[in-house]
Amino acid sequence: MTVPDDRAPAAPARPVLARDDVLAAADRLGDRVRRTPSVVVDSRAFGTPVALKLELLQHTGSFKARGMLNRLLAADLPAGGRVVAASGGNAGLAVAYAARELGLTAHIVVPVTAPPVKVARLRALGAAVVQEGAVYADAFTVAEGYAFRAGLPLVHAYDQPEVCAGNGTLGLELVEQVGPVDTVLVATGGGGLIAGIAAALADRARVIAVEPERCPTLHAALAAGAPVDVDVGGIAADSLGASRIGSVCWEMAKATGMSSVLVPDEAIARARGRLWSELRVLAEYGGAAALAALITGAYLPEPGERVAAVVCGGNTDPAAVLSDPG
Amino acid sequence: MTVPDDRAPAAPARPVLARDDVLAAADRLGDRVRRTPSVVVDSRAFGTPVALKLELLQHTGSFKARGMLNRLLAADLPAGGRVVAASGGNAGLAVAYAARELGLTAHIVVPVTAPPVKVARLRALGAAVVQEGAVYADAFTVAEGYAFRAGLPLVHAYDQPEVCAGNGTLGLELVEQVGPVDTVLVATGGGGLIAGIAAALADRARVIAVEPERCPTLHAALAAGAPVDVDVGGIAADSLGASRIGSVCWEMAKATGMSSVLVPDEAIARARGRLWSELRVLAEYGGAAALAALITGAYLPEPGERVAAVVCGGNTDPAAVLSDPG
Repeated sequence: MTVPDDRAPAAPARPVLARDDVLAAADRLGDRVRRTPSVVVDSRAFGTPVALKLELLQHTGSFKARGMLNRLLAADLPAGGRVVAASGGNAGLAVAYAARELGLTAHIVVPVTAPPVKVARLRALGAAVVQEGAVYADAFTVAEGYAFRAGLPLVHAYDQPEVCAGNGTLGLELVEQVGPVDTVLVATGGGGLIAGIAAALADRARVIAVEPERCPTLHAALAAGAPVDVDVGGIAADSLGASRIGSVCWEMAKATGMSSVLVPDEAIARARGRLWSELRVLAEYGGAAALAALITGAYLPEPGERVAAVVCGGNTDPAAVLSDPG
Repeated sequence: MTVPDDRAPAAPARPVLARDDVLAAADRLGDRVRRTPSVVVDSRAFGTPVALKLELLQHTGSFKARGMLNRLLAADLPAGGRVVAASGGNAGLAVAYAARELGLTAHIVVPVTAPPVKVARLRALGAAVVQEGAVYADAFTVAEGYAFRAGLPLVHAYDQPEVCAGNGTLGLELVEQVGPVDTVLVATGGGGLIAGIAAALADRARVIAVEPERCPTLHAALAAGAPVDVDVGGIAADSLGASRIGSVCWEMAKATGMSSVLVPDEAIARARGRLWSELRVLAEYGGAAALAALITGAYLPEPGERVAAVVCGGNTDPAAVLSDPG
């Protein structure tokens, strides 16, 4: 005997992030973000023809401006409103920039150990900077508490759907600029960029995470079956050094069958040197990491495969490129 | 009484360079040159909205690869053939690159004072480098004599129609990428780039020469009514320091009513700093000179005018950008 089941069949769970969210973000952002250029290079530069999305030309020097502007626009805050974040890196710069653009004030918590130059850069963008905590995890806890007590929105560096959706708008532009692609290589730290691109190009392209061997957040999560903390270090840790993959990215990774390849620091430096010597593009190490997968063969395209890669940031000391092996 | 004139009316003289020549160059070049990207930036970066043609991403780091490849392709040399040139700068790099691409050997004369790093770069591209003469004018005379005696083609750095036509192909790409423009600002030394762009966009856009105050070749020619020698110096002399405007450019300047505006070195440095701070684009000084005209108001666009500028080269020491005023 079977028990009749008169419940309605469960609707398929809506993914944490869908292409519609990215399209809505693009509408919301309008021309507040720069339509960064793409360039197609032949196989001599990186061993295979590849379309590069030059997102280092974005406001504040990285894709993060897209996500932060979308996050703050979606929150629909009153003029003069306040938001809270914790980051002295690309995310912090982008929050400060986005807040200033929208007539808001960003309160940004950075650890007491943050370099004065980073604090100065945030202040130059109009942010109110608070130095508390020994490391970033502590600063984030301070920011959480402050946001909660003051009833203010807390902006996460990567793990909020609106942040990821905004970042993903660069994926829409990429295929508008270079046509359909089969594969997009995306440097991955907390996963706020790749989650957005995976949503933007769902069912349209394969999205591959490229992670430094010393910052393997998604790789470790895929191996463990769930997000886990990892030790991070190496030359790209300043931009890719999240200690755990974000939950938005993890959901998208499971939903889309995302995979991750690892690259050694040496290959990241070589990719960065090659970007400079071949293209006069001066990226930060994290911005060159996706290309390291082509140089090493960690990702090996099929003949004829249309491959793209995101050069996602350029906040670096220009002089340092001279020591890259190229 | 009138003397009957039975001579046929003179056909209008064909200009030294026409749009057709540039279209033919584009066909000839095919995908041997990189289709460099363009990006539109709002008024915050340079005081007025402007479309930037990022030609520093071209092979060898400047537009010169276009002209040199077109020059050598048009000469239709046999495999293993030889060509002669005199230049240790962007033109020399481009000749060496173009020759290697086409299976030719470039003999490049540089003065005995040429920095070893430049000689090494030419040799790395497969060029046979000869060091003769005290300054570049002497090296050029040596190259002329050598080419004449050996019956080899002499490639001029800027003053040959095929060189200019090849360079001008970037003007075709620019309007394909960003749509029609009213005005294109072009840094000018010997005039090999602006002559080509003026031909490419004849009757379609105004082309304005931007020259460093200390390298005023076209400006001086326009004032004198003919090309004249000028003293050159300043921060952009390594790429814009021709001592006299080329005859091809001069003919095009007269035919199209080209004008020239002057910019001080300080504004060139500021434009270069702004390219880095706003866009993470690291140009050589000559590559930033066109934008200096917007910063200083040396060129003042009308409201709504669609302005473009060419960022024409990126062969520079990256560390030096840190000292630009930005």
